[in-house]
Amino acid sequence: MESKLKELKARLLEVYDLEAVSSVLQWDQATYMPAGGTRARAQQIRAVRQLAHDKFTDVAVGRLLDELRTLEQDLPYDSDDASLIRITREDYERAIRVPTDFMGDFHSHVAESYQEWTRARPADDFEAMVPYLERMVEFSRDFADFFPGYESVADPLIDYFADEGYKASEVQAIFADLREQLVPMAEAIADSVEPEDEFLYRHFPKEEQLAFGLEVVKRFGYDLERGRQDLTHHPFTTTFSTGDVRITTRVHENDLRSALFATLHEGGHALYEQGVRTKLEGTPLARGASAGAHESQSRLWENLVGRSRVFWEVFFPALQARFSEQLGAVSLDEFYAAINKVEPSLIRVEADEVTYNLHVMLRFDLEQELLEGRLAAADVADAYNARFEQDLGITPPDNRDGVLQDMHWFGHFLGAGYLGYTLGNIMSAQFFGTALRQRPRISDEMREGVFDALHGWLREEAYGHGRKFKAPELLERATGQPLSIEPYVDYLTEKYTALYNL
Amino acid sequence: MESKLKELKARLLEVYDLEAVSSVLQWDQATYMPAGGTRARAQQIRAVRQLAHDKFTDVAVGRLLDELRTLEQDLPYDSDDASLIRITREDYERAIRVPTDFMGDFHSHVAESYQEWTRARPADDFEAMVPYLERMVEFSRDFADFFPGYESVADPLIDYFADEGYKASEVQAIFADLREQLVPMAEAIADSVEPEDEFLYRHFPKEEQLAFGLEVVKRFGYDLERGRQDLTHHPFTTTFSTGDVRITTRVHENDLRSALFATLHEGGHALYEQGVRTKLEGTPLARGASAGAHESQSRLWENLVGRSRVFWEVFFPALQARFSEQLGAVSLDEFYAAINKVEPSLIRVEADEVTYNLHVMLRFDLEQELLEGRLAAADVADAYNARFEQDLGITPPDNRDGVLQDMHWFGHFLGAGYLGYTLGNIMSAQFFGTALRQRPRISDEMREGVFDALHGWLREEAYGHGRKFKAPELLERATGQPLSIEPYVDYLTEKYTALYNL
Repeated sequence: MESKLKELKARLLEVYDLEAVSSVLQWDQATYMPAGGTRARAQQIRAVRQLAHDKFTDVAVGRLLDELRTLEQDLPYDSDDASLIRITREDYERAIRVPTDFMGDFHSHVAESYQEWTRARPADDFEAMVPYLERMVEFSRDFADFFPGYESVADPLIDYFADEGYKASEVQAIFADLREQLVPMAEAIADSVEPEDEFLYRHFPKEEQLAFGLEVVKRFGYDLERGRQDLTHHPFTTTFSTGDVRITTRVHENDLRSALFATLHEGGHALYEQGVRTKLEGTPLARGASAGAHESQSRLWENLVGRSRVFWEVFFPALQARFSEQLGAVSLDEFYAAINKVEPSLIRVEADEVTYNLHVMLRFDLEQELLEGRLAAADVADAYNARFEQDLGITPPDNRDGVLQDMHWFGHFLGAGYLGYTLGNIMSAQFFGTALRQRPRISDEMREGVFDALHGWLREEAYGHGRKFKAPELLERATGQPLSIEPYVDYLTEKYTALYNL
Repeated sequence: MESKLKELKARLLEVYDLEAVSSVLQWDQATYMPAGGTRARAQQIRAVRQLAHDKFTDVAVGRLLDELRTLEQDLPYDSDDASLIRITREDYERAIRVPTDFMGDFHSHVAESYQEWTRARPADDFEAMVPYLERMVEFSRDFADFFPGYESVADPLIDYFADEGYKASEVQAIFADLREQLVPMAEAIADSVEPEDEFLYRHFPKEEQLAFGLEVVKRFGYDLERGRQDLTHHPFTTTFSTGDVRITTRVHENDLRSALFATLHEGGHALYEQGVRTKLEGTPLARGASAGAHESQSRLWENLVGRSRVFWEVFFPALQARFSEQLGAVSLDEFYAAINKVEPSLIRVEADEVTYNLHVMLRFDLEQELLEGRLAAADVADAYNARFEQDLGITPPDNRDGVLQDMHWFGHFLGAGYLGYTLGNIMSAQFFGTALRQRPRISDEMREGVFDALHGWLREEAYGHGRKFKAPELLERATGQPLSIEPYVDYLTEKYTALYNL
């Protein structure tokens, strides 16, 4: 039995290596690759992914997983090996249901659709994208049909690509509750006095911005012996092994927030990936539990830590020292108010903590309507604008900065692309609140700009487990509670009541 | 028949992609990878290489190559397709003779040997490397024995890894002739007045050095839409596709020569790779003809162009403008003499044009003695020092900067690692001389700092063909002559007679 397990691990290691290789190819494409490399790179990535998929779905893997059932039952449920067999079997059984040709067709569609989107968005040409979106709805429904017996069309997509264990209906109910809290909060804030934030848009030299951001994530615990930071267009984090987890960012010299909070955000993702126990390396367990779980950590470090007053009590003097000309005359309170300014705005990725989720939930609801045939692709721009007006009080002046702003619907299956952002926000407050309650040293340390206790708790309770437990289980093990919006709403209420004298 | 050819090309494309992927992994390792990534990266590279090897040596490839014999015979010898079938068959027949396990053992040996060399070299510990070198001699002999019927043990190694078409005995004879010319030339120079070169070792800021080098290689014709430059420890050029050919360099702020000539050298390699016709892309023909042919181009651009007086007539004013404080008071003649200063020195890669080849030829001769059992590994340090004293007039004070300075013998098969450097120098003069004779515009343009005609001739006569012709054939097609030291000796004699008033 041990030799079967060894063989399974050897096969999974090959898959892991190839997936890591594909990530290296994508990282290079997004950071350094010259334009001339585009065509060949697409082909290289496809070749490597195909090999990884073929190796994973090999019948021999299925046979080994069958043969290992008794070993799995003999081992404790939460042991590394039982978890490996359990999770791998689920992955395998899902993967073999999806025909290779289908994914080939899908990737061809995505390539064309993405290409057209890069043209249509700046041209504000929604009409051109309608057929691509129609096709994407079809692809998404067809994908779901490989997994008959679902409750919502989105469920198999969520299971496969995002947050296994959360059903669409459940997420919709939770999101509806959250929306009920957030819409009035945003409205009340809109009626309050706006904080001054002009000083965030002075000129901040690139190298200095990068150095400050990196200094902060190092303080969080990001290990640069096992990571690095590079420049890109759309920040992301990528993992080549637990010994090589890289973050990327982009810098706007006339906007201090952009690179800073992107770096803290990606730093959170990287802490998660660097914190997976090395024993899980080379297996499907050596990554985060889900999209939402991952986002909970990036948002925790970016917002609950990185936009908190206690954080800036320590770090604002350092920031001021670096940018004395730009920020020398700004007080801590002014700075804290400015980086937390709430303002309905068009672009999701630039939104503040309160309105951000309104963007996400709106998208998730429209996705359900599209998947269930209640909304036609041709009508989605109007539906987006109507709901945007309703939730955020402003109407997008065009589709470019409206429904076309994100590439998700033109490059990914519907239903699974957005929910993780808000699930992550909700979970971030649950994780953070539990950590603070269970380990009082965390608060003491944070007042000194030290994060060892917080990072330690998160490693023990979340990061170290990798993908051994699905997000709902991980959350419940760590916090004792299922998904609940209460801690998140309490956090926002307390913070923004104080900031805006609500 | 066309469909068989198509199938062959599809299979070769898979191999090409995987080899390119392996190159991306190695490039990243040598440029940006954090230390923590080392272990996983070795595994990723091994996995991808193994897949490429397995795909290439698949029996189906052999069958297709057999079936394509008649098509090959029907096509003109120098057509792309006939060349593809011919060269691929030779590659295939060689590749299947080498057992996969043998190469696995070899790579394990190399990994350990290289690791030990990184320790032993700084510690000046030759004794520790003796068993590794003994093992390398065995590996090299065993490899040769997969190709029985050779004249010299080195011949199969040269065929497989370096310069197919040149036999060791032939190379030894040519090298002996060259040495007879170079040793007295170096001695005569040693008796002459040394040029002043102190100003090359002033402080030259890194960014300025990088910018100048890149400006020059762009003028040569290096296309940055299809390439880029990054920093590394040991400069190299790497190809991911004809649309993505990258150079690397390193900068010493107190030595102007180091990055500058390394960049020109790598730029030459890159021009070769960027110049392969795109029709050959994705096949085994889409790279340079051989190690020596490649080196002929890097050395041509580095030395015959980049260390020439006509080049600096145009570029020295630009260099002075960039480094006015350091070079403002230096004359063109002083600068030209300084960058061409001949001086016996310990380190091959830092040697001048005249003494460089003495290092190479010495190594090549010792390799033959090792391979043929005329020299024991334990005696190689003494043999190296004795020959060094004989050829260069100085004795290495230690093994660190003597026999241990290069990793070749501890990381590659013997016999094939060095000869390309001097073959390249010899060929560079043949190519360059022919180009100047055949196209007078080249000289006119160069006086204006323009290289289009030279680059164009080299693309037509060499780069464009990729690996369609082996180096001896390529050389003869382009220059009408077989390998001959005369043009090279004439070049050196003329240049250094003038420089040193010999």
